[in-house]
Amino acid sequence: MDAATVMERCDALQVHTEEPGRLTRRLATPALAGAMDAVEGWLRDAGLETHRDAALNLFGRLRCGSPGAPAFLLGSHLDSVPDGGRYDGPLGVLTALAVVERIGATGARLPFDLEVCAFSDEESTRFSTAYWSSAAVAGRSDPAWLDRSDTSGVTLRDALTAAGGDPAAVAGCARSRGEVAGWLELHIEQGPILERDGLPIGVVTGIQAQAQHRFTIAGTAGHAGTTPMAGRRDALAAAAALIVGVEDVARRTPGVVATVGRIDAEPGATNVIAGRVTLTTDVRHPDDAVLGRALAEIEDAAHAIAAERGVEITNEALALNRAVPCDPGLMSACARAIASQGLPVRELASGAGHDAVALSHIAPVAMLFLRCRGGISHNPAESVLAADVTVALDVMERVITTIGGRP
Amino acid sequence: MDAATVMERCDALQVHTEEPGRLTRRLATPALAGAMDAVEGWLRDAGLETHRDAALNLFGRLRCGSPGAPAFLLGSHLDSVPDGGRYDGPLGVLTALAVVERIGATGARLPFDLEVCAFSDEESTRFSTAYWSSAAVAGRSDPAWLDRSDTSGVTLRDALTAAGGDPAAVAGCARSRGEVAGWLELHIEQGPILERDGLPIGVVTGIQAQAQHRFTIAGTAGHAGTTPMAGRRDALAAAAALIVGVEDVARRTPGVVATVGRIDAEPGATNVIAGRVTLTTDVRHPDDAVLGRALAEIEDAAHAIAAERGVEITNEALALNRAVPCDPGLMSACARAIASQGLPVRELASGAGHDAVALSHIAPVAMLFLRCRGGISHNPAESVLAADVTVALDVMERVITTIGGRP
Repeated sequence: MDAATVMERCDALQVHTEEPGRLTRRLATPALAGAMDAVEGWLRDAGLETHRDAALNLFGRLRCGSPGAPAFLLGSHLDSVPDGGRYDGPLGVLTALAVVERIGATGARLPFDLEVCAFSDEESTRFSTAYWSSAAVAGRSDPAWLDRSDTSGVTLRDALTAAGGDPAAVAGCARSRGEVAGWLELHIEQGPILERDGLPIGVVTGIQAQAQHRFTIAGTAGHAGTTPMAGRRDALAAAAALIVGVEDVARRTPGVVATVGRIDAEPGATNVIAGRVTLTTDVRHPDDAVLGRALAEIEDAAHAIAAERGVEITNEALALNRAVPCDPGLMSACARAIASQGLPVRELASGAGHDAVALSHIAPVAMLFLRCRGGISHNPAESVLAADVTVALDVMERVITTIGGRP
Repeated sequence: MDAATVMERCDALQVHTEEPGRLTRRLATPALAGAMDAVEGWLRDAGLETHRDAALNLFGRLRCGSPGAPAFLLGSHLDSVPDGGRYDGPLGVLTALAVVERIGATGARLPFDLEVCAFSDEESTRFSTAYWSSAAVAGRSDPAWLDRSDTSGVTLRDALTAAGGDPAAVAGCARSRGEVAGWLELHIEQGPILERDGLPIGVVTGIQAQAQHRFTIAGTAGHAGTTPMAGRRDALAAAAALIVGVEDVARRTPGVVATVGRIDAEPGATNVIAGRVTLTTDVRHPDDAVLGRALAEIEDAAHAIAAERGVEITNEALALNRAVPCDPGLMSACARAIASQGLPVRELASGAGHDAVALSHIAPVAMLFLRCRGGISHNPAESVLAADVTVALDVMERVITTIGGRP
């Protein structure tokens, strides 16, 4: 299975979407099930033993270790944000399959089995549950998350049951540290550095710390024509001030990125002052302490806005993920594999979160970034070069054989 | 029919709602049809000749003039904003019915017939069509409005047909200037002045100028973790700056009120920078020229934000209504009727728009405001005193008999 096949399959998976004409594939939807079925077929075609777990994850195992050996995991996720691109997730799953297929074809024996992983919920778009599916594998899925609802009021518990998963068995998805030898994921960079430096691939040093919150602003609904400006408790105007404040905190703290991506104003009529607004924040920095200070500044801004405008502003944490460094031994193997291609070794921090955050609790983790056009991701314009995928497959194969003691 | 009955009927109409537990009654919904049916029953009970027109309006006529005489119109609307109150609209319809019923009971002959009007769409919540139903009666309904869609994508044309109206016959709803002798509406003040001054009722001098626009902010969607702050074209951050700017224009221009009540951000995910945002503005001032300057300042703010942030900001006008003065003769009759109750005559400008805006094109118009608790409207907390309604009924009856030449 070569790079051209990987590219074709990334194209082909786009048909599995919730919305005609754009790629949206959230947890526990028929679209995701369709993608999982397609990939399971390819895993079987490659001779791997497949299974699904209670959290709707898909695995395909190559028995190249001794009986009872742990598994070295490779892969990514198959869910997608609304209106996303074809490579964020599927590229990691399909390159993993290509590499495992190649190693299987050599008949090589390794100190571990190899397992291709296709996670069901990395983007957390539907239930705001960070790394829910890989957290289940890492034994870190909070049972309370099952009661979270999507925007239609459907709980994760009910969605999971309807999609063929098993809420009661999610805890049983957990694997122990002894069962997992490591984790390697290839992912598009989602940033501009490799393209700027003219490099196809780079080694990820770690994943930055990330916090997501939901803010609720409670004011007083009223008539847009008869309520004097001075007497208003306008929840949407207060929300706007908060959005500007969040942006301001990020702009004045180097390395912090902060985003308000969702907002909902009620009652939502042109001639009615909004009485209640909810919005989400997503704040990240490579250093836990710097992130903590930025979050405190956002809280201060919210308090000041609430006091000035006579509204109530509350927030709840949706997710809080500490910075996760990649494993030095695996990073070294990645660097040597890239150098063996005659390429300079570029190290990068990951701006985005990945399943490695959850999996780092049970295994050493590593990631490789692939150059992507314009640094664009979470967008239909995601684009990679087949030639870069060719390089990535060779690098990944060498990483596995190196750490398996067969360089 | 006394004030207690008016109050009971305002209560009773609350059952006709789109949403259990809160009052929402938009154009061409079963909820509005239910309210219209109930009121039609009461009109018939009072001996009035009822009819519906193609725009879903309801009328009940008392033949107290000579054959061929024009009609003096009294009433208000039966639609409601989402989560609205029980008096905004129904109070005007039911007091009109009470007054016409009383005059009918006296057997008085007047130089005009009397007609109770219950308009179908004053709030414009569903299709953003300002005074669509009274505009039809005034012969000023723009046929292009029929192609406007609600948030579900249903056009006004289709909604109207489904609800038993007739899009092709809306133009035929128009009445000529000679057919309409005048318009009188009682409405809750929707402001704090009468309550502050301890007065039950006041005379409206006119309705302020109003402009509604829909702004669209187009940026670039992107990953919340990997897109540096400096490179962003965040449509929601730009929208927030615009909302703050709109508020700022209103705050620094005495008498201007400006509101952003609706906002929608796409794709609407916690970890994705918004690529596209739409929001509405509603800006009002009693003077056309001052309103025009405020709108120009908002445009300037939008241009500055677009240039600074590298986003595109466009807008379309949803409604533009010039200031409408009430008729001096009718105002004088209102003032004398209030004075005859031994009450001081308080004149007020209307901060809200009303059907008088449309009807002023075919007839002299007048309005009376009733004290409402806390100045609150467009809210379930709307509240009036039965004693104030009693005063209003006497005042309205005297206004009609005065202008009819029977003081």
